[in-house]
Amino acid sequence: MEFSSKLLENAVNEVSRLPGIGKRTALRLVLHLLKQPKDNTTFLSEALLHLRSDVETCEKCHNISDTILCAICKNTKRNPDIICVVEDIRDVMAIESTSQYNGVYHVLGGKISPIEGIGPQNLQIESLVRKVAEGEAKELIFALSSTMEGDTTNFYIYKQIEKFDITTSTIARGISVGDELEYADEVTLGRSIVNRIPFEQSIRG
Amino acid sequence: MEFSSKLLENAVNEVSRLPGIGKRTALRLVLHLLKQPKDNTTFLSEALLHLRSDVETCEKCHNISDTILCAICKNTKRNPDIICVVEDIRDVMAIESTSQYNGVYHVLGGKISPIEGIGPQNLQIESLVRKVAEGEAKELIFALSSTMEGDTTNFYIYKQIEKFDITTSTIARGISVGDELEYADEVTLGRSIVNRIPFEQSIRG
Repeated sequence: MEFSSKLLENAVNEVSRLPGIGKRTALRLVLHLLKQPKDNTTFLSEALLHLRSDVETCEKCHNISDTILCAICKNTKRNPDIICVVEDIRDVMAIESTSQYNGVYHVLGGKISPIEGIGPQNLQIESLVRKVAEGEAKELIFALSSTMEGDTTNFYIYKQIEKFDITTSTIARGISVGDELEYADEVTLGRSIVNRIPFEQSIRG
Repeated sequence: MEFSSKLLENAVNEVSRLPGIGKRTALRLVLHLLKQPKDNTTFLSEALLHLRSDVETCEKCHNISDTILCAICKNTKRNPDIICVVEDIRDVMAIESTSQYNGVYHVLGGKISPIEGIGPQNLQIESLVRKVAEGEAKELIFALSSTMEGDTTNFYIYKQIEKFDITTSTIARGISVGDELEYADEVTLGRSIVNRIPFEQSIRG
């Protein structure tokens, strides 16, 4: 791609460094900004700069926050005895949107993944184990994604905390609400039969 | 989508104003920036700000440029007698990448589109007509996209300049090089038969 302007080339190169955005898409986005009022570009750039320089990580649960302690950890109506272990802030947002959970979170910041060079020391595992060791919680809910890396991470944490007096659980895997059985994959269907629940419990939910 | 951070929410909202980028994608991009070194965000934001405030539009062809006269208009080896009329800079880049054109360009900045509220007065048509009226060029090549809006724009410009002594042409429409005839649409195939060229000419190309 040959550019008639160094400024344009530079902007396109920077935008195309974002994941999933190629040179052509980057050019489309940058040309869009050029056609819009100048303020749009200013607001966009400043929002990114402010976020990057001023955002905090909650010192307790490592969630992204504007303050040293996030709104969930600060909230006295939440139950601090139950900690839901998740990968990143998107999982917190997903669980919060269900309005079904009243405990707190612990954001690991990723999963153990040797291929991507992410080991336990790159994640917020030590602080989680410390919380458990100090008796801060009564139950840990593992809510990592159901992949090789997620299972490895679950197991690694479990091994570190099994000696402590704490209940551990994982979120239920099964057929999605509204799905037809015939289209479900065997592993999910198998798990949902093995981990069946009393009917009375299902109609309460 | 509920955010635990106003800074994050603000950044996601600004990014999701870009065309084709929804809230989820915006969140993914912003979280990516948060995981990267701070410099990446700084470079990205500054590249956009510099572009928006310092980029010029070539006063002759209206192409995007770092200088008042773009590199193509400045280039004395290009033939200023032939002007290729295009929609935007992406078309200039596409034609330049063929290395088959040695004339100059005139960038309209869009097509006439009543639905989008774009009329002739919103495009660089007046300055094109003036160039033609002042005898600056010997040939105009219409290279707009082959849509209703493109054809309307071509025709509108043609009507303005037909009284002047200038050759007009449009780029050839036909079967793509390498394409099988049986999969071509009828309009394209029809045009390529009507506008057939001498065989000797085709083997020179």
